[in-house]
Amino acid sequence: MHDPGFPGGGRDAGPGVLLTDLYELTMLQAYFEEGLGGSASFELFMRTLPPTRNFLLAAGLDQVLDYLATLRFTPEELDWLRGTGRFTDAFLASLEHLRFTGDVDAMPEGTAFFADEPILRITAPLREAQLVESRVMNLLHYETLVASKAARSVLAAGDRLLVDFGLRRAHGAEAGLLSARACYLAGFTGTATVEAGRRFGIPTFGTMAHSYVQVHADESQAFERFALAHPGNVMLLIDTYDTERAAQRVVDLAPRLAVKGIAIKGVRLDSGDLADHARRVRAILDAGGLKEVTIFASGNLDEYRLAELRAGGAPIDGFGIGTRMNTSADAPYFDCAYKLQEYDGKPRRKRSEGKATWPGRKQVYRHYDAAGRFAGDVLALAGQPEPGEPLLVPAMRGGTLVAPRRTLAQSREHARHQLACLPESLRSLSPAGEPYPVMVTEGLKTLAAEIDAST
Amino acid sequence: MHDPGFPGGGRDAGPGVLLTDLYELTMLQAYFEEGLGGSASFELFMRTLPPTRNFLLAAGLDQVLDYLATLRFTPEELDWLRGTGRFTDAFLASLEHLRFTGDVDAMPEGTAFFADEPILRITAPLREAQLVESRVMNLLHYETLVASKAARSVLAAGDRLLVDFGLRRAHGAEAGLLSARACYLAGFTGTATVEAGRRFGIPTFGTMAHSYVQVHADESQAFERFALAHPGNVMLLIDTYDTERAAQRVVDLAPRLAVKGIAIKGVRLDSGDLADHARRVRAILDAGGLKEVTIFASGNLDEYRLAELRAGGAPIDGFGIGTRMNTSADAPYFDCAYKLQEYDGKPRRKRSEGKATWPGRKQVYRHYDAAGRFAGDVLALAGQPEPGEPLLVPAMRGGTLVAPRRTLAQSREHARHQLACLPESLRSLSPAGEPYPVMVTEGLKTLAAEIDAST
Repeated sequence: MHDPGFPGGGRDAGPGVLLTDLYELTMLQAYFEEGLGGSASFELFMRTLPPTRNFLLAAGLDQVLDYLATLRFTPEELDWLRGTGRFTDAFLASLEHLRFTGDVDAMPEGTAFFADEPILRITAPLREAQLVESRVMNLLHYETLVASKAARSVLAAGDRLLVDFGLRRAHGAEAGLLSARACYLAGFTGTATVEAGRRFGIPTFGTMAHSYVQVHADESQAFERFALAHPGNVMLLIDTYDTERAAQRVVDLAPRLAVKGIAIKGVRLDSGDLADHARRVRAILDAGGLKEVTIFASGNLDEYRLAELRAGGAPIDGFGIGTRMNTSADAPYFDCAYKLQEYDGKPRRKRSEGKATWPGRKQVYRHYDAAGRFAGDVLALAGQPEPGEPLLVPAMRGGTLVAPRRTLAQSREHARHQLACLPESLRSLSPAGEPYPVMVTEGLKTLAAEIDAST
Repeated sequence: MHDPGFPGGGRDAGPGVLLTDLYELTMLQAYFEEGLGGSASFELFMRTLPPTRNFLLAAGLDQVLDYLATLRFTPEELDWLRGTGRFTDAFLASLEHLRFTGDVDAMPEGTAFFADEPILRITAPLREAQLVESRVMNLLHYETLVASKAARSVLAAGDRLLVDFGLRRAHGAEAGLLSARACYLAGFTGTATVEAGRRFGIPTFGTMAHSYVQVHADESQAFERFALAHPGNVMLLIDTYDTERAAQRVVDLAPRLAVKGIAIKGVRLDSGDLADHARRVRAILDAGGLKEVTIFASGNLDEYRLAELRAGGAPIDGFGIGTRMNTSADAPYFDCAYKLQEYDGKPRRKRSEGKATWPGRKQVYRHYDAAGRFAGDVLALAGQPEPGEPLLVPAMRGGTLVAPRRTLAQSREHARHQLACLPESLRSLSPAGEPYPVMVTEGLKTLAAEIDAST
C-alpha cells in the first residue's frame, strides 16, 4: 500500500477542488465560452535557488497524484459557485463531470535538482491543466522546501538520530503532516507527530514535556513514575530546573529501576548551551555507570547548529529538529512557477521582465563522473533526446497512474542515493563556489529566439 | 452563523486528535497509571517579539474552540494506537470517552498584544489540558503570525485595496485557508482563495493568469475574449509580453467593448519596476480616456514594498500580496510557548535557562491615554484584580462555548479598532524606539521568587 496522502478518502477527504485561486475558475469559464480546449503542457520549476541552498530535493509528487486522481466538483461546491453569481449555468454544468484525464511526467521524489529544471510536467486538456495549478504548486512547493532543508540536516548530522519535532510551529495542520513526511523522505529517522506516523508509516518518537516534571512533587519522582509507566522507553527530560542536578538524579534512580528490570534509555536537553551541558551530563552519567544512556538534544536547532555541535565534538547522540526546519526559516519559500510551455502543439513563452521562461516541453538529462557523482545536467526539448539519464519519468497517462507508485521507503532510499551522489562542493552548508552546471541545448535556445521573433 | 473553521464537520473533518506530538500521549498514559488528574492551567504566550514586529495581533481562537468542542478519539484512531504496542488497553479504553470539559479564557481575535502576555489560558483536568497542546499551538501560532504581518500591510496600505494572493506558496492547504482568514481579520479586503471564500465568507478576487494570454493568438484577442466572458469583472493582466504596449491595447479595445456596454475595470501589473510601469500605464490610460480604469499590482510584495511604492507616489490602487505574507517571510515563526502555570491549585514555574516563565494564572490589564491610545499593560495574577481593561475574557466554561461567538466580521472590526488605538511609534514598520510598556505586578514577582525558593 502506498502512502494515503493528505487528500485521501473518508474523514480526511482534504480541502477539495475549491482550494484554488479564483482566477483559475474565471479563466475556465472564458475557455468554456470560447471553446478553447486544446492540449496544454505546464511545467513546474524553480526560477532560482536561495543563496542558502546548493541543491533542492523534489518531494510531494505522491500527494499531487492523489489530488489529480480524485479531482472533482461536489454538488455542494457547484451550488456554492452558483450562489456567487459569477458563473453561468452552462459552465457550471460542464464542471460536474470534470476529471483529470491528462499525463504527468515528473522527477521521482527524492531526486536532487536545480534552477530552471522542470520537476513536473502536466499535459492535459487546457482547463484541467489550468485548474490544478494552485494546489499542485501548494503541495510540491512546500514538501520540496522542507525536504531540501532537511537534506542539509541529514548531511550535517552524519550518523546521529534525527527526529522531526516541528508540528506546533508548522504553518497549520497539513504543514505539520507533510513536513514530517518530507523530513523522513530526506533521511530523518522519524517524527514526533502521531498522525504522520499513522498516515505515512513514519516511526514516531516522544516521551515527556516540562509540564510532566512540573506536576510532580519533584524531579526524581517524575522520572521514576515515568519509567514505571513506560518501562520500554525511558527517555527523561532533564532541563526543567537544573540540568546537572537532574543528571545526578538519573544516576541515583538507575539502580532502583534496575532491580525492576528497567533500563534508562536516554536523557533529553532542551535549553542552555547544549554542547556544554552535554559534556557535563555525559561525565555525570559515565561516572555513575550509565555509559549506555544516550543524550538527545532539542531547542532552536537547524543544520547550522548541528554542524557546530558536531564540529565541537559535543557528545550528543540524537537531535530533535522542529520549527526552523518545518518553516524553512532561512528560506521560507522558493521562487516556484507553474508555466504554460506548449498549447495546441505550439511552444509558448512568457517574457515578463525577470520572469522569462524556456519554452516547450522539456526534459533534464543528468551526467555522472567516473566516481558516480553528478557532473552536470542538460536542459533540452523533450522531443530532442540527449545523452545522459532522463530525470522526468511518466507518472500518469490519460488520468491513470503508471505502474506501481513508489512507496515512501523507496523514495527515501532514492533520496539517500541522490545525496551520496552529490559533488562535494554541493554538500557543504556554505554556498558552493561554482553553481552546478545546467546547460541549455542549442535547440532550446533557438526555439526561444524564434518565438520571441514571432510575437 | 459563525465561521465553520478548519476542523469542522463533514467532508472537512480535519486531521483529528492524532495531530499531536507523541509525548502528549505517553504523558497521558503515565498520568493515567499514576492517577494524576487534578486541574491544570496552561497559558499560551510569546516569549519575545521578533525585531521586525512592534506588536502582534491575536488570531485563531475560533479554530481552537472548534477543535476543543469536537475533540474525541475515533475507534479507528484507538485501534491504530493499540497497534503501536506502546499503550495499555486500560489506558486506551479511558480515551474512548475523553472530551474537552475545561475552561478557556482568551483575548478576542484581533486584539493587539505583546511579549509574555498570555493570549489563551486553558484550565481543565490535566490530561485534557495536556493533550491539546500541540494543535492549540499549531493553530494560534500560525494565524497570529499571519495576522500580525498582515496588520503591518494594512497600516502601510492606507486606503488601497489589499488582496491575499498567497495560496500557492503557503505551507500546505490549511496555511492557505487560515492565512486568507488571518489577513481578512487584520483588514485585508479579500482573498484569491475560493475555498476561503466558501468557508469563511471572505470576498474573493481574481481574473486571469499569464497562461490565459499565452493560449490566445495575441494579447488583444485575449483581452477582448475575457471581457466578453466576464463583462462584469474586466481586470486585464498586461505584463505577459510588453507592459506599455499592452496598456495601449487596452485603450484600443475600450471603445469596441463600450458599444457592447462593457467597461474595463482595471489592469494588473505583475513584474518589473512596478512604480515605473504604473506611472507609464497611468499616463497611457489617461491619455486614452480611461481615467476610471484602476491599476492593481502584484509580485513579491510585502509591507516594506507597499510603503516604498506609496512613498514614491506610484499610481497604484490595489495590491495582491502573497508569499511573503503567508509565510511571514521576515519572521517565519514566533517564540510561542504553552506552559503549565498551575496544577492542583499550586502555581508552577519552569526555570530552564532562557525559558523561565511567570507562574500562576494570569490576566493582562490595558491602560489608555487621553486620546484613547494604548498607554501600557499590566501583567498580574488572575486572582488579584488591577485597574485597567482585562484582556482575557471567558470563551468556554466546562467544555461549553460561552455566549455567542464573535463572527469574523466582528473580529475584523475589533482588529480595526485595535490598530486605530496603537501608539504612533508602534505603527511604524521600523522597530519602535522604546518597547511598549508591560509592567509585571509585585504580587507576581513575589510569587515567582517564592516558588524558586521552595524548589
